[in-house]
Amino acid sequence: QLRDRVVELFDTHRTNVWQGTRITITAGPTREAIDPVRYISNHSSGKMGYALAAAAQQLGAEVTLISGPVTLPSPPGVNVIHVESAEQMLAAAQAQTMDVFVSCAAVADYRPAEVSQQKIKKEQKGDDAQLTLVKNPDILKTIATQPQPPFCIGFAAETEKVRQHALDKLQRKQLQLIVANDVSDKQIGFNSDNNAVTVYWQDGEQSFAAQSKQNLANALNELFAQHYFKNKP
Amino acid sequence: QLRDRVVELFDTHRTNVWQGTRITITAGPTREAIDPVRYISNHSSGKMGYALAAAAQQLGAEVTLISGPVTLPSPPGVNVIHVESAEQMLAAAQAQTMDVFVSCAAVADYRPAEVSQQKIKKEQKGDDAQLTLVKNPDILKTIATQPQPPFCIGFAAETEKVRQHALDKLQRKQLQLIVANDVSDKQIGFNSDNNAVTVYWQDGEQSFAAQSKQNLANALNELFAQHYFKNKP
Repeated sequence: QLRDRVVELFDTHRTNVWQGTRITITAGPTREAIDPVRYISNHSSGKMGYALAAAAQQLGAEVTLISGPVTLPSPPGVNVIHVESAEQMLAAAQAQTMDVFVSCAAVADYRPAEVSQQKIKKEQKGDDAQLTLVKNPDILKTIATQPQPPFCIGFAAETEKVRQHALDKLQRKQLQLIVANDVSDKQIGFNSDNNAVTVYWQDGEQSFAAQSKQNLANALNELFAQHYFKNKP
Repeated sequence: QLRDRVVELFDTHRTNVWQGTRITITAGPTREAIDPVRYISNHSSGKMGYALAAAAQQLGAEVTLISGPVTLPSPPGVNVIHVESAEQMLAAAQAQTMDVFVSCAAVADYRPAEVSQQKIKKEQKGDDAQLTLVKNPDILKTIATQPQPPFCIGFAAETEKVRQHALDKLQRKQLQLIVANDVSDKQIGFNSDNNAVTVYWQDGEQSFAAQSKQNLANALNELFAQHYFKNKP
């Protein structure tokens, strides 16, 4: 009975770690239209962001998930907003009131400069074609550098120099935490059910060994909450 | 009892309409890599191609389905070959021995001229970027113009001048049949469960009203089989 009571207390603690906190999470890829049928996108499955949203909700947060096009079911109790492009994702993020922002989506850096209203016919073009791209808005940086920013957590999916790129991004975008993973490893990352990451902050880091994205989502939420409440004014 | 016998005879006839015929069907989009994480693709869901493959198999054909990246289950009894790019899809198609080729995939017309082996960093580029594209091989035309081509059926997904573009394609690619649909209509086409199409051939055409892709797949297979056996030497 004593053991049950201890487990119960411990569970209650875990259940409430995000109590009263509004968290917005972005997930999945974005799609940038070339014409009505073609687009540029990336291999993000959205699994990590959806797992983070489900875990945050279970840990007591009020969660909004802004999702690019994926084939995952909505996590129970989470407010899901579906978007396609980076510009739509930014607009949705700017419309939220939030304490914590977790930018897990693989936002397309560039979009076609012009979107053709009709399907571009192959015969209209030669053997080669130039697609002019313009830079998309940086959603995370936009949110992190607004006058009273939420607690901002970024993700860095890298194929090389993972640590260096992650630390650069932490500074440049004025983030509190950044979660880095090496997507060149096929066992983890994009489309995989497992992931291994290292979280960096101003004066520290913590590594998480390869595990299911569900388990990892719980462990990351615990770490995020520790840092959030430590830094909260 | 007489009624049951008639239904049975009719069903047996329908069941065997493709008996002894080897059909290869392509379905879904292709993905053309920009770098290890980014790609160009299109909105094809693969539903029409998968429905055609399932129906053809039920109508007695030996079916190979060459599928781009989709999220559909493999139809029972169908040999499914998964590919990503147009070049992979062409290689898979050329490796088949077939009597009938149904090109239902939305093959990317162009692919990036160079595929970066590492993720391209946003910081390496300016506000604008040029993506140089090269024309992909025309899978259907390649198969349809080989020395002893199979009976070739194409699909034309158009947003304007549907009839004209379809007839152009029929001539240019030396096809026996072409199935045209207007993907600018959101009620049908890409990602929809319904479709309405018009099939064109050298000296005729037939329209099919909006209906489920399953029903349409059965009706199209009946029409394809009529034309195939009529033209068979």
